[in-house]
Amino acid sequence: MLNDNLSLLCDFYELTMSNGYLKNGFYKKEVYFDLFFRKVPDNGGFAIVAGLEQVIEYINNLHFDESDIEYLRSKNLFDEDFLEYLKKFRFSGDIYAVPEGTPIFPNEPILTVKAPAIEAQLIETFLLLTINHQTLIATKANRIVRAAQGRAVLEFGSRRAQGASGAVDGARAAYIGGCLGTACTLTDKLYGVPAGGTMAHSWIQMFDSEYDAFKTYCELYPENTTLLVDTYNTLKSGIPNAIKVFKEVLVPKGIKNFAIRLDSGDISYLSKRARKMLDDAGLKECKITVSNSLDEYLIRDLMMQGAEIDTFGVGERLITSSSSPVFGGVYKLVAVENEGGEIVPKIKVSENTAKITNPHFKKVYRYFDNESGKALADELCVYDEIIDTTKPRTIFDSNATWKTKTLTNFTAKELLVPVFKNGECVYNQPSINEIADYCRKQIDLLWDEVKRFENPHTYYVDLSKKLYEIKNILLNIYGV
Amino acid sequence: MLNDNLSLLCDFYELTMSNGYLKNGFYKKEVYFDLFFRKVPDNGGFAIVAGLEQVIEYINNLHFDESDIEYLRSKNLFDEDFLEYLKKFRFSGDIYAVPEGTPIFPNEPILTVKAPAIEAQLIETFLLLTINHQTLIATKANRIVRAAQGRAVLEFGSRRAQGASGAVDGARAAYIGGCLGTACTLTDKLYGVPAGGTMAHSWIQMFDSEYDAFKTYCELYPENTTLLVDTYNTLKSGIPNAIKVFKEVLVPKGIKNFAIRLDSGDISYLSKRARKMLDDAGLKECKITVSNSLDEYLIRDLMMQGAEIDTFGVGERLITSSSSPVFGGVYKLVAVENEGGEIVPKIKVSENTAKITNPHFKKVYRYFDNESGKALADELCVYDEIIDTTKPRTIFDSNATWKTKTLTNFTAKELLVPVFKNGECVYNQPSINEIADYCRKQIDLLWDEVKRFENPHTYYVDLSKKLYEIKNILLNIYGV
Repeated sequence: MLNDNLSLLCDFYELTMSNGYLKNGFYKKEVYFDLFFRKVPDNGGFAIVAGLEQVIEYINNLHFDESDIEYLRSKNLFDEDFLEYLKKFRFSGDIYAVPEGTPIFPNEPILTVKAPAIEAQLIETFLLLTINHQTLIATKANRIVRAAQGRAVLEFGSRRAQGASGAVDGARAAYIGGCLGTACTLTDKLYGVPAGGTMAHSWIQMFDSEYDAFKTYCELYPENTTLLVDTYNTLKSGIPNAIKVFKEVLVPKGIKNFAIRLDSGDISYLSKRARKMLDDAGLKECKITVSNSLDEYLIRDLMMQGAEIDTFGVGERLITSSSSPVFGGVYKLVAVENEGGEIVPKIKVSENTAKITNPHFKKVYRYFDNESGKALADELCVYDEIIDTTKPRTIFDSNATWKTKTLTNFTAKELLVPVFKNGECVYNQPSINEIADYCRKQIDLLWDEVKRFENPHTYYVDLSKKLYEIKNILLNIYGV
Repeated sequence: MLNDNLSLLCDFYELTMSNGYLKNGFYKKEVYFDLFFRKVPDNGGFAIVAGLEQVIEYINNLHFDESDIEYLRSKNLFDEDFLEYLKKFRFSGDIYAVPEGTPIFPNEPILTVKAPAIEAQLIETFLLLTINHQTLIATKANRIVRAAQGRAVLEFGSRRAQGASGAVDGARAAYIGGCLGTACTLTDKLYGVPAGGTMAHSWIQMFDSEYDAFKTYCELYPENTTLLVDTYNTLKSGIPNAIKVFKEVLVPKGIKNFAIRLDSGDISYLSKRARKMLDDAGLKECKITVSNSLDEYLIRDLMMQGAEIDTFGVGERLITSSSSPVFGGVYKLVAVENEGGEIVPKIKVSENTAKITNPHFKKVYRYFDNESGKALADELCVYDEIIDTTKPRTIFDSNATWKTKTLTNFTAKELLVPVFKNGECVYNQPSINEIADYCRKQIDLLWDEVKRFENPHTYYVDLSKKLYEIKNILLNIYGV
């Protein structure tokens, strides 16, 4: 089981390399790493970044305790100097990051680390896994929420999550992506994501009859009750019993906030039949919640078929992003400082051109149209470039430089904000509700074409002329 | 970030139901729940159970601390009596489980809980998520290991795992399934799964030349070095530099244990070219490790193409089981004790016949052929049935009762073993190496037909006559 000290949650090679960096003096070298990704899950048009709060917690807690040192010593690989170094290890570098809830696109840095080589290296695995995981789930949740067209979506997937943090942090990310709540109690306690839930089939089986089970529940929790109606037979038994109990227990009290839940069978058909039965019984206020291996595609179909659904409970396909369960963020060296403090850009070339990195310490600008308010393009610039928004700015596609676009009447927003400076956290962590709200607003600033589930418009992520030229110089030196 | 207290890692409805159970006296009722699954991931023939050690830790630590109680009180839903009850809560029931590393099949209990209703209910979510997660990964690892036909498979996926426990516990499960090691350092420290690793591209980029990077590394770690050869150009630069350094640094010392790693490009082609270059240079002892989005299907293809590979490093597709990322274990009420202590079987019916549960407190027998040693079938029996292996035993398919098979000269092994009795752990936890070794041996007892990747033979999981009859009686009462 996991404990609070996740400092050894790193690939072993981070340690063998770091031991080497200490030995050959590289530990003093300031290096720059970018965390970025190459492909949106589910072939979508954008991702939603999430996980920064857990990165901050991790960095603040980062240390190697006596048992970590003992463990490492037992490997008979590491110098005592290195183990001594680790005993005093604290992160002393800078981290810039795109705030959680921001839509992000392939090949732009979503986090940049500037730190002495060992420090930048040792945090690689945890940064990647945390950002990869939560970004994956926030992105999936946002797709599902958009498919539901305003109906509530709740996260119900803990039992099918890939491990404890998959459940707990996944439910947090789902809330950032637009879910309105979770079934995961611990996510509520730790992060303030509202948790809720009423009954499983076992509650109903525990009683002599479904009616008794429903009645007992409604008497116990008259406010906000949802009765699960598919334990025996949804149409012949579940819904009739629910209607009877609602009328006996809740209606006389003037309570209007109750629902039924369908968890199996043909959801579209059953929801319409249920709606009619409830309406005929005078219970128009009774809401219908459904859950049963749903995702954005099934929800889109249900909506098209006119299913009568108020709330979607989404489980395994959200909490594991099952149709596309990997977010492929990578962490690449983009620059080193030489002894004079000059920043020297570095590139990783590859025969696969899509895998060539964008070198250098960078800024990311997002340009918004002042008229529509919509996001127009992102531009990656060298760290010292300043964008003058009072003048038209021509951007170009670095894979086809003749494709240009001139921006006028636009606003430029820097996406990477300082999170750590010299090892100190300088970031005001927003609340989870602020993050979710920010996400909703940022999504509204994307054109619908970027939000399509299939074949979305490719949002522009261009390189500035200066950065493009530097990249080409490096490609000519290191290219193959 | 997760802390040690995972008691609130439960679906909220477990708490609302439990509050109700306390209020209406059901908290004293002894209930039986089975944890089982319905479908093998990747349409495989069997799964490998894993995660029991973490279930034991969880049960042993299970308690609600002051902050948990405060959090629950703040929801304004729970009675003070219930919160008082939770303050003193400890698990007092029995748990039976199939030992980790055992091949398991759909619809057989892999864990059975007998406990007072609240206790059995509150542990549902954690039991499911832990067993689901680790079983998923152990099962996937075993597929990948079988595809590699005796070549070593290492788990490299932490950075793409779904959260911290996805990485740490996932690497543990992968080792149970047959991987020989992991890159995840914390899994080594916590569970003793051997961690290893050498260098990332950043190590090489940090130096002025690839040659310097290799040479420095070999001098630092002469034993068991693996040089990553694809930073610039695998064939023109990486392999020639590696050969040069091996000959300069390692060969003169008589060291024979070193390797190169290919991480991009056409692995089949590059591995053959690399093998020839190494052999031509007199380095027949140099091993070749490959890694690059591998899984069982790609490894099978590489093997068929005669790729020259000694070790496979497998990342995201293993640690997320990406082609089938959900293990669908469920937790269903199968019996309750009435006031006289009699065990009353319960069933959950469904219009989907595949979802009808097998009622009652059960035993699971696995029958082995005494001649071949192979596993023949599993039989689910009522808890008080005794199998007499001295007599022939006729088993039958409960979906087609005319399909029978008579076993003679066989051995019966009970799969569910006691893990907790009256809240006390009575299980001798095997070491991780014992579990992995046990798994290997159990897999050898399955017929090859069950181990096919596609369209495997369906292993028999039958009901005893007594259990079959009880199920039918219940279906006639509750069926629809």
